Amino acid sequence: MKRTLGTCYYPEHWDEEIWTEDARRMAELGLTWVRIGEFAWSRLEPSPGDLQLDWLDRAIDVLNDAGLSVVLGTPTATPPRWMLDKHPDMIALDADGKPRGFGSRRHYCFSHAGFRAESQRITRIIAERFGHKVAAWQTDNEYGCHDTVISYSDAARLAFQDWLQARYGTVDALNTAWGNVFWSMDYDRFDQIGLPNLTVTEPNPAHAQAFRRFSSDQVVAFNREQVDEIRAHSTAPISHNYMGRVTDFDHFAVGKDLEIATWDSYPLGFLEDRVGASPEHQRAFARQGDPDFQAFHHDLYRAVGRGRWWVMEQQPGPVNWAPHNPAPLPGMVRLWTWEALAHGAEAVCYFRWRQAPFAQEQLHSGLLRPDSAEAPAMLEARQVASEIQNAPDVSIPRADVGLIFDYDADWAWSVQPHGAELSYFGLVLDHYRALRRAGLNVDILSPDTQDFSGYKIVLAPGLMHLTDELRAALAQTEAHVVYGPRTGARDADFKMPVPLPPAIAGLDVTVARLESLRPDSPIPLAGGGAVQGYLEEFETTATPMFTREDGQPIVVTDGNRTYNGGWLDDIGMDRLVAQLCETANITTRTLPNGIRIRRTETEEFWFNHCAEAVKTEIGTLAPASVTRRII
Amino acid sequence: MKRTLGTCYYPEHWDEEIWTEDARRMAELGLTWVRIGEFAWSRLEPSPGDLQLDWLDRAIDVLNDAGLSVVLGTPTATPPRWMLDKHPDMIALDADGKPRGFGSRRHYCFSHAGFRAESQRITRIIAERFGHKVAAWQTDNEYGCHDTVISYSDAARLAFQDWLQARYGTVDALNTAWGNVFWSMDYDRFDQIGLPNLTVTEPNPAHAQAFRRFSSDQVVAFNREQVDEIRAHSTAPISHNYMGRVTDFDHFAVGKDLEIATWDSYPLGFLEDRVGASPEHQRAFARQGDPDFQAFHHDLYRAVGRGRWWVMEQQPGPVNWAPHNPAPLPGMVRLWTWEALAHGAEAVCYFRWRQAPFAQEQLHSGLLRPDSAEAPAMLEARQVASEIQNAPDVSIPRADVGLIFDYDADWAWSVQPHGAELSYFGLVLDHYRALRRAGLNVDILSPDTQDFSGYKIVLAPGLMHLTDELRAALAQTEAHVVYGPRTGARDADFKMPVPLPPAIAGLDVTVARLESLRPDSPIPLAGGGAVQGYLEEFETTATPMFTREDGQPIVVTDGNRTYNGGWLDDIGMDRLVAQLCETANITTRTLPNGIRIRRTETEEFWFNHCAEAVKTEIGTLAPASVTRRII
Amino acid sequence: MKRTLGTCYYPEHWDEEIWTEDARRMAELGLTWVRIGEFAWSRLEPSPGDLQLDWLDRAIDVLNDAGLSVVLGTPTATPPRWMLDKHPDMIALDADGKPRGFGSRRHYCFSHAGFRAESQRITRIIAERFGHKVAAWQTDNEYGCHDTVISYSDAARLAFQDWLQARYGTVDALNTAWGNVFWSMDYDRFDQIGLPNLTVTEPNPAHAQAFRRFSSDQVVAFNREQVDEIRAHSTAPISHNYMGRVTDFDHFAVGKDLEIATWDSYPLGFLEDRVGASPEHQRAFARQGDPDFQAFHHDLYRAVGRGRWWVMEQQPGPVNWAPHNPAPLPGMVRLWTWEALAHGAEAVCYFRWRQAPFAQEQLHSGLLRPDSAEAPAMLEARQVASEIQNAPDVSIPRADVGLIFDYDADWAWSVQPHGAELSYFGLVLDHYRALRRAGLNVDILSPDTQDFSGYKIVLAPGLMHLTDELRAALAQTEAHVVYGPRTGARDADFKMPVPLPPAIAGLDVTVARLESLRPDSPIPLAGGGAVQGYLEEFETTATPMFTREDGQPIVVTDGNRTYNGGWLDDIGMDRLVAQLCETANITTRTLPNGIRIRRTETEEFWFNHCAEAVKTEIGTLAPASVTRRII
Repeated sequence: MKRTLGTCYYPEHWDEEIWTEDARRMAELGLTWVRIGEFAWSRLEPSPGDLQLDWLDRAIDVLNDAGLSVVLGTPTATPPRWMLDKHPDMIALDADGKPRGFGSRRHYCFSHAGFRAESQRITRIIAERFGHKVAAWQTDNEYGCHDTVISYSDAARLAFQDWLQARYGTVDALNTAWGNVFWSMDYDRFDQIGLPNLTVTEPNPAHAQAFRRFSSDQVVAFNREQVDEIRAHSTAPISHNYMGRVTDFDHFAVGKDLEIATWDSYPLGFLEDRVGASPEHQRAFARQGDPDFQAFHHDLYRAVGRGRWWVMEQQPGPVNWAPHNPAPLPGMVRLWTWEALAHGAEAVCYFRWRQAPFAQEQLHSGLLRPDSAEAPAMLEARQVASEIQNAPDVSIPRADVGLIFDYDADWAWSVQPHGAELSYFGLVLDHYRALRRAGLNVDILSPDTQDFSGYKIVLAPGLMHLTDELRAALAQTEAHVVYGPRTGARDADFKMPVPLPPAIAGLDVTVARLESLRPDSPIPLAGGGAVQGYLEEFETTATPMFTREDGQPIVVTDGNRTYNGGWLDDIGMDRLVAQLCETANITTRTLPNGIRIRRTETEEFWFNHCAEAVKTEIGTLAPASVTRRII
Repeated sequence: MKRTLGTCYYPEHWDEEIWTEDARRMAELGLTWVRIGEFAWSRLEPSPGDLQLDWLDRAIDVLNDAGLSVVLGTPTATPPRWMLDKHPDMIALDADGKPRGFGSRRHYCFSHAGFRAESQRITRIIAERFGHKVAAWQTDNEYGCHDTVISYSDAARLAFQDWLQARYGTVDALNTAWGNVFWSMDYDRFDQIGLPNLTVTEPNPAHAQAFRRFSSDQVVAFNREQVDEIRAHSTAPISHNYMGRVTDFDHFAVGKDLEIATWDSYPLGFLEDRVGASPEHQRAFARQGDPDFQAFHHDLYRAVGRGRWWVMEQQPGPVNWAPHNPAPLPGMVRLWTWEALAHGAEAVCYFRWRQAPFAQEQLHSGLLRPDSAEAPAMLEARQVASEIQNAPDVSIPRADVGLIFDYDADWAWSVQPHGAELSYFGLVLDHYRALRRAGLNVDILSPDTQDFSGYKIVLAPGLMHLTDELRAALAQTEAHVVYGPRTGARDADFKMPVPLPPAIAGLDVTVARLESLRPDSPIPLAGGGAVQGYLEEFETTATPMFTREDGQPIVVTDGNRTYNGGWLDDIGMDRLVAQLCETANITTRTLPNGIRIRRTETEEFWFNHCAEAVKTEIGTLAPASVTRRII
Repeated sequence: MKRTLGTCYYPEHWDEEIWTEDARRMAELGLTWVRIGEFAWSRLEPSPGDLQLDWLDRAIDVLNDAGLSVVLGTPTATPPRWMLDKHPDMIALDADGKPRGFGSRRHYCFSHAGFRAESQRITRIIAERFGHKVAAWQTDNEYGCHDTVISYSDAARLAFQDWLQARYGTVDALNTAWGNVFWSMDYDRFDQIGLPNLTVTEPNPAHAQAFRRFSSDQVVAFNREQVDEIRAHSTAPISHNYMGRVTDFDHFAVGKDLEIATWDSYPLGFLEDRVGASPEHQRAFARQGDPDFQAFHHDLYRAVGRGRWWVMEQQPGPVNWAPHNPAPLPGMVRLWTWEALAHGAEAVCYFRWRQAPFAQEQLHSGLLRPDSAEAPAMLEARQVASEIQNAPDVSIPRADVGLIFDYDADWAWSVQPHGAELSYFGLVLDHYRALRRAGLNVDILSPDTQDFSGYKIVLAPGLMHLTDELRAALAQTEAHVVYGPRTGARDADFKMPVPLPPAIAGLDVTVARLESLRPDSPIPLAGGGAVQGYLEEFETTATPMFTREDGQPIVVTDGNRTYNGGWLDDIGMDRLVAQLCETANITTRTLPNGIRIRRTETEEFWFNHCAEAVKTEIGTLAPASVTRRII
């Protein structure tokens, strides 16, 4: 695999006379890819049926003529204003029932049949016209950004009722599966079932989880409709650019219909807005970004793309949308780029080519300033372009450790966190961080994984509903599997199974009681570390690996099966990883804070995410630097 | 009086074949009572008019056959889904105008005539059928839980207009009483008067307080309608299970129509969610609950029930609904049970018999786990059952100290707190805590009390509107009465009286000015302690009991009348209680933090609410323990 | 100019028999002015067309007969309830689309044509009847209080569309000016343009800023309509009472139609609610108010009134509406009064004469208590009345330093703060505070100022859009002008100009990059102080005045032009002011915390805002005191 760079460009934002010079400068910089078109609907179809495609054709030609390859986006994230005249009820409603109207972007409900037809129509038109001259496709833009997966519209309600009928067949079956007898919540007909918002107190979690699954399925179906239209007219690979920490739909399920997964990486914005780190951590990494958050997504999208993945939008300087928008330290744009490449990205595209002097993102930096002068990121992009030019082909090895990430589990924790601060994403990220602190490569794994061969350790935290298929696959693997907490805590319809969870074959452990803890009240482990936030009590005959100070087991093991009944703090996680790796014969390191490693088949990368130089075993690493070593 | 135990059971949640075994285990445990039926409407009447009562009949028989007495609940807290088809406008609206719809429970507006008729109808049907075989009744479930007293629906608005017309007769009288001239808020007709939400800035407090009173009256009327139906067919006593710190309706007024008051006691959930304690206090008592909050409610409901009261739902383990849901310390379930019994409860019923593996409360523990194995609480319940078996009859003495609790005052403080952190409930609880720290029994008293004989001290804090009747009764008692702050600050229509408050016969004190204080700015008292939050300045010739450091009086006294113009901190409250008790010849103790005492006619109970052993005058008390001494 | 005092009175709140005695006491106190009538619409016109003006006539006569001059308010801030029957859609909607209904005050949308006609009608009626016997007028009351400038009603939407058509002519021009191509936000017709609320993510800032300007223009037009009606019947000067820190409309623009600007000064309420100070600062000045906030507004309204200004409502004791409502320290009412007079107020009127025992402000103190006894403020008002009686005529000198305040800039920062804590008002206040700490008089200047002659220094911070006129005027002045940060960052339609900002003639500086900072991450300046919150990087050949520790320039200068690229902290601001004043030959002081100075032509006032005595160069100043020295 070759490593490549690219950028995102909006020919419709600029006078046509500068396109050629822009393309020349892109090529000169060493870029391969240019993504265009994904917000251009109002210029492609200024009024219903009035197609104005020639300008885009010319833009593609200009770019292709300069030797650049075009990724063309379908423009469905920004339906024009006239669309609302045709389909006034196409907008989503929020949980309070308020409309989410026109004036920015993503103002559509995934369940609206009228807009779905429009989406297919414009995709078909574009695929027909440009299918032969683009190198890759992107569907829509950042599904789910701005909380747009979940809609409480009438269209969603009606579609949800159909979805429920298809799933349950009869309303009696649904009543039984959900336990609606509980508070006389039985339904007589599917058309009585509302969406789980605006209830007096919390809705039935089975109801809520079904709605989350339905909402995800609507995204998958929407995307597939575009894919089908494109495939009819083009052989170029199709991608979607996922957004960091958007978990409201199943990225694996969408990814199955795509050739390439891409994601949009904004390390500084994410640290302020989405990582959920402490103020001290946010302050320390304010100009570098979290040391693990991007890597986690790189590994996630390598899995979603089944090996083929890009960074479609890479932050090149301050952004405009976070609570605070600092500039990255010199070196960070290069570091971020190389980090993605080290994790196997085929391409890293900088967002955007030139900073727009108008509209919502006028303070979002680009490679060029609004006056076309070079912004600071340009220097670093140029350096990377030069560095990758003569690099050998890259091959990504299978990691020793696999970590399962399951969107369904994320919804389940969100429906029923049990403790105010608890989230599945946070739990998995805490596992990932510990593996990284130990210097390990990690593969994120889909919950659909059937074959775990090659892995020495598989971590499967927090899988509240464990499907029969995954349960069987995990039972068969020779890897050391670490389950829990909350493994198999709910059946397919959010009921608690009896016999009680986790019911793991070959590991005698039953969760007898569980509790959530105040953040100020962790439970110390014997030997160091603590359980924080969430804790289970067991009936077990298995061997305790970690116990509370009073001797009660927290982590128990039997053969190559381990169950962890607590959310461990960093020290506890480090101890767990160390012990697992020792058993599995995996060499670990203890990396300094902010230092991270990643290996390809032939290289070892050392990343210093700190603002200060840090001493390591390979020498002192400069601040905000990446060191590539051939191994 | 005999002490008894019970549990809450949902036969409709379980296969009929296990009912008998469940009943056998309940009886074997030593339970007397089983409450059933209060959420079963959809199974009693699956579609309009289709009554299916046989299963409930069989369930009652199974329980009665096992020697258990049944408390039957009317199912009106959970109207079935079809009810909404009949009465789509029966739901409440919140203050923003958003509907509070179907999908959980309590989805009705107390003012909706259609639903009121349905409530009477189903109550009549159940009373007719089961009136001869149940031992007690419960109306509805937890009136007001989930903020359901106050509704901003059209039904509420129209009923409020009728209520106002009945109260004021003419709109001119209302305009005058409310001072509507203030901002040209005069009305021409009653039908112009809206509910006091969605105003540009705060509404007239007279308007707001009238709406609070109306809302409470609607609950009273709703409850009375059910009581009337039951009484026509059954001689069994009628109860309602009030919820902790729900003060949106007048529990005394509802209680007048009932034989027994019960309440639902969830010490850990309350500490996280409703007590309003500091984080340090919440952390220290996270697994024990607040040391005074439950006792306060015990004393309150003894008053509401005119001596007859139960705990209808007692937390047996972690609950599901608080921000954090820890497990109680071993011993706490026993402690909580004995604490209720020591305050005179006739019965304590554990909620619930078996943890439900489905729906909203699947993480709410029971005496049994979902797999029917015993949960930890079972052991403690069994111990208490054994302990009470041979205990003698109990008699509850009149306390030396009475503390008036007035729901109308709670609404008045809520309408006009004057300082952001101030609440009437908090003020009264602070008084109660101080009395408990001094080792005293306390009687909570209704503001309707006319005869205070037998009390040495009566505390009447915060009675913003002092009725003529209570004013006269307090003037006549020989007890030492402590008024203030804010006593008589408003007339019956929320006007400030002239001459200025408090206008207490026999005590020359006038509130010349009042202010609210930042939490970081208490005013020290000469001699120790401070005023926090709220402070009055006086014109007075009475004797200063406490003064500010600059000599201004805060508490003044004359004979057996005292007026307190400040919200005292703990030290100040302790000084006040000590001085009052010394004058009144009441022996006090100074109890260690977390230690509380309660006496019956023949027993003295020592409760250690701490997680550690504590030394006391009667020896070292084990953590989470209760010690019963015969006196 | 003579200094005078007054009060606000509501004859409609009291029995007519006490009017005469009230008037007598006012006159005896030494008051000159009585403002009346501004909330009396329901008593002037109890039902549509039923005019009841006689009582007001009698009230005016009573006051005039006592030697008092009447300021008459138009009653439009409180439309009667019947008005809503006529114009149910006259109310404003909030950003969530919720109605802001009847029941308090200011329940109208400035864009509603029907209510605008009612406003003109009632104004005409009152002006005709009373135009000959009142000494001054007040339009409406506190425009914008309770967030009432911005309305999302249908009336506002339609009026906004007209406003846009008038401004842009064609929708294509608007699309281009706003950069609507960005996310396919192009409009086809003006009637498609909605208000910028309820969008999925942020709206186009050009859209938002246009709506802010439109909303301000609606207030100006509403006010002008009343002015026109009054002028047709009366020669008395017309005023409006602005509210502190209400910046949602352009006070200068409204002021152009008035003879006198007045404002309502509530130092303690403001400190709790609007200043935005730290908790420590709020605690230290809880009973005195912020030492600069009132002075800032005094100087602002002197500019808005083109020299003629009053305090129309002066806090006399605790108010009712802040989160906490403490009493002022003894001396503060006198201090506040003298502070206003020292800044050039023609009159200071205490709000209100007698505390109302009913309705929303029953806990808002007055000069009299509800029982007509004197409240503590009376003593201090009497003292001031005596002190001003024999004082000489006052003349207000031009200050050496001018500080531009631009409402348009405030909206722009609010539309695009870039950092969560940043506001234009805060930035300007930080400048003002530094000037005051240096002991300087300050003139606030309108952005329409064309002639800066007489000023040695002009500070122009944060002017995001710099009009051509102001740019030219600043370029011509011989004063030292300090621009930035964000000067000229946007054109008239919120686009970023190219060439890049600030593009100041004679000062070579270009903002190459900008960023916002976390509050915990200030950037230290070489030599002391720091940049906090907001920071720009330059391309510049100008002389660095301040640099970062790494040498990058923050403040650069060339001749009498300085550009400041950072939001300086207090130390940085003090250094900047000291250096500018040294260059400009202005003598500065370094005043102790809480001490402030103000000079007229003949006097120097020293104000001690502290609760403790403070040593100064003129001796030890008593707490909460004012010292007047003839100079």
